[in-house]
Amino acid sequence: MADKNNIAKTKVKVPEHSIRRLSVYLRYLYSARDNSDFYVSAPNIAKELNFDPTQIVKDLSLTGIKGKPRAGYNTFELIQAIEDYLNFDKSNRAFLVGAGSLGSALISYPQLESFGIKIVAAFDIDPEKTGKLIKRVNVLPVSQMPELAKRLKVEIGILTTTAEAAQQATNLMVESGIRAIWNFAPINLKVPDDVIVQNTSMYSNVAIMLKKLQASKQS
Amino acid sequence: MADKNNIAKTKVKVPEHSIRRLSVYLRYLYSARDNSDFYVSAPNIAKELNFDPTQIVKDLSLTGIKGKPRAGYNTFELIQAIEDYLNFDKSNRAFLVGAGSLGSALISYPQLESFGIKIVAAFDIDPEKTGKLIKRVNVLPVSQMPELAKRLKVEIGILTTTAEAAQQATNLMVESGIRAIWNFAPINLKVPDDVIVQNTSMYSNVAIMLKKLQASKQS
Repeated sequence: MADKNNIAKTKVKVPEHSIRRLSVYLRYLYSARDNSDFYVSAPNIAKELNFDPTQIVKDLSLTGIKGKPRAGYNTFELIQAIEDYLNFDKSNRAFLVGAGSLGSALISYPQLESFGIKIVAAFDIDPEKTGKLIKRVNVLPVSQMPELAKRLKVEIGILTTTAEAAQQATNLMVESGIRAIWNFAPINLKVPDDVIVQNTSMYSNVAIMLKKLQASKQS
Repeated sequence: MADKNNIAKTKVKVPEHSIRRLSVYLRYLYSARDNSDFYVSAPNIAKELNFDPTQIVKDLSLTGIKGKPRAGYNTFELIQAIEDYLNFDKSNRAFLVGAGSLGSALISYPQLESFGIKIVAAFDIDPEKTGKLIKRVNVLPVSQMPELAKRLKVEIGILTTTAEAAQQATNLMVESGIRAIWNFAPINLKVPDDVIVQNTSMYSNVAIMLKKLQASKQS
């Protein structure tokens, strides 16, 4: 077994930039389909979304779709191919750990299910929070996580605790068999090599934006 | 004036990776201060946070602090230096555009103010949403944005509309004098060269995590 105290490295390589763009194309394709545009071409998508058409053709080829890049792709087939590639058609059960304000907001965020993530239970260490319902999701004591993860075959954890509680919550998730952690806590999590961490730090996004705003005034 | 239809480029360069790390150090320093650790050293921080000490010294030097890297920094001075560098001690007024579920969640997210962002008004095109209060924030019709932005000198906009409404909302923000947009909508915004866009796409973060989880099972 891997050393749990190892620094989280990028162990699994995926084409992150292409995946980001594919998820943007997908949103556009949904609206094209809704507008009864049954064929779309890379130059069309490029024009609508401000992307380079060559890049689009390259990204789309990752999904294995066989289109005629200039003549066009069948919109339905293309949507299906991207959804399959991104696993968006599947519903992936997830636990949410830390039922504070951000956690509650994510539970109440209806788009999450359309991204392929279904929160089946939330956990907290605070007895004032456990035993309650947020929307239709139960907030349970963390002690119930290991058994429930095994029973429900949950592999995804959403971490919305405070920075202070995050590492301990992570350790429990890993012990419970969670294999991918979507981390909203502003810390660098220690996980075994075979556990995936995806960081979404609101905090650093704000910091970068404010720094750019300041720099733009000085230039 | 810049062409509004230009593709958003990275016009203002800031050391993004260092800023991300500095915001993580800051969280650690707050807890060190709360534990009465009045001196911290780069090797201490490195050990606690899984970072390389040389990198930490380099990052901290950006703030202009004069410390003795191995002997240590005064915790209070270091916090002040990072906060100054990141503009976290200031309260930056912001508008939120799109008062749906994600927008409401952000308004209700208390940490935002500690990051230096204060939402002073929210806007929506839906008459069913306008005229209401979310926490203490008024939801106003978008038509009121230009005048209010000028009166309140608001330069930051948080975009939480649907993908479909995002570009039009962006155009109005830009016309209202907004200079930095924190974009949660999954599209590539078209903005003039002098407007900053910071993207936080929940959607692509989920896609990347699911793809890594899938790849880890195949390897």
